[in-house]
Amino acid sequence: MRILGIDPGYGRTGYGVIDSIGNRIKSVEYGCIETKPHTPIPDRLVDIYGAVREVIARLQPEAVAVEQIFFSKSVTTAIDVAQARGVVLLAAREAGLPVAEYTPMQVKQSVAGYGKADKKQMQEMVRMFLGLANIPKPDDAADALAVAITYAHNAPFLDRVERMKLK
Amino acid sequence: MRILGIDPGYGRTGYGVIDSIGNRIKSVEYGCIETKPHTPIPDRLVDIYGAVREVIARLQPEAVAVEQIFFSKSVTTAIDVAQARGVVLLAAREAGLPVAEYTPMQVKQSVAGYGKADKKQMQEMVRMFLGLANIPKPDDAADALAVAITYAHNAPFLDRVERMKLK
Repeated sequence: MRILGIDPGYGRTGYGVIDSIGNRIKSVEYGCIETKPHTPIPDRLVDIYGAVREVIARLQPEAVAVEQIFFSKSVTTAIDVAQARGVVLLAAREAGLPVAEYTPMQVKQSVAGYGKADKKQMQEMVRMFLGLANIPKPDDAADALAVAITYAHNAPFLDRVERMKLK
Repeated sequence: MRILGIDPGYGRTGYGVIDSIGNRIKSVEYGCIETKPHTPIPDRLVDIYGAVREVIARLQPEAVAVEQIFFSKSVTTAIDVAQARGVVLLAAREAGLPVAEYTPMQVKQSVAGYGKADKKQMQEMVRMFLGLANIPKPDDAADALAVAITYAHNAPFLDRVERMKLK
């Protein structure tokens, strides 16, 4: 099963595509969609939407996992991130893909085994799960791969939830 | 000049299209895009995006004005509304239209003359500006028309701002 993980943001949206075969996971592609600073939000949303559609069309994932918004930042930042997240969810659902959403704590729990893992620990676990020589860069891509791995770990259960929702 | 005003929400997105000719304003069409309750947010975003695109394609506005998010509600609600707002901004910008954003206070200031006007006063002013026999229904549509009227009142100034931004 091929999974696209996304860590949305209006300035930087990390993405990571993995293949989950039995209990093995491997990385297909990862990277970061950057939008131009000092450009209006609507223009950035057009860029993010287009880039996510391109990744989906080219790599053909079967499911999309998206990180939920963490509220520690300012409300204004949360609003901007949520707008970016909206166009990511749109691109995924328009492609007919099931969409799963995870809180940062769920991702940490699933990848590192406990919900308070720090960034370094998370990145090292992502590297190990994917059998990579080095930690994936940039950080946004590593975060997105962690979200995709979370889906892979929870897919058997989630598939049932999605089927219920989509009925 | 034809203006589309939008009051975004994930359950109900009000829209209102007006024509501004000299110092006269008239209503072209208004209504409310409703999404099915108890359906996943990504599906609702697909519906909102599709409906806004349809309105733009059919009525050919030259500018879009969108209400900003009011923070008095819960952060979770604000996040959901922001996701809906994201796909509205996307639809507008993809159509190549200038997008203006106003806070609820700016809309009240511009339509009723002061920033603390209540809902009844706002609706009555919208009715008067558009020369309608009755207050436009539902409330979401009246709110959207108020946003469009705000654009009409501020357009000469805003046009300059937009041109600066788009350079």
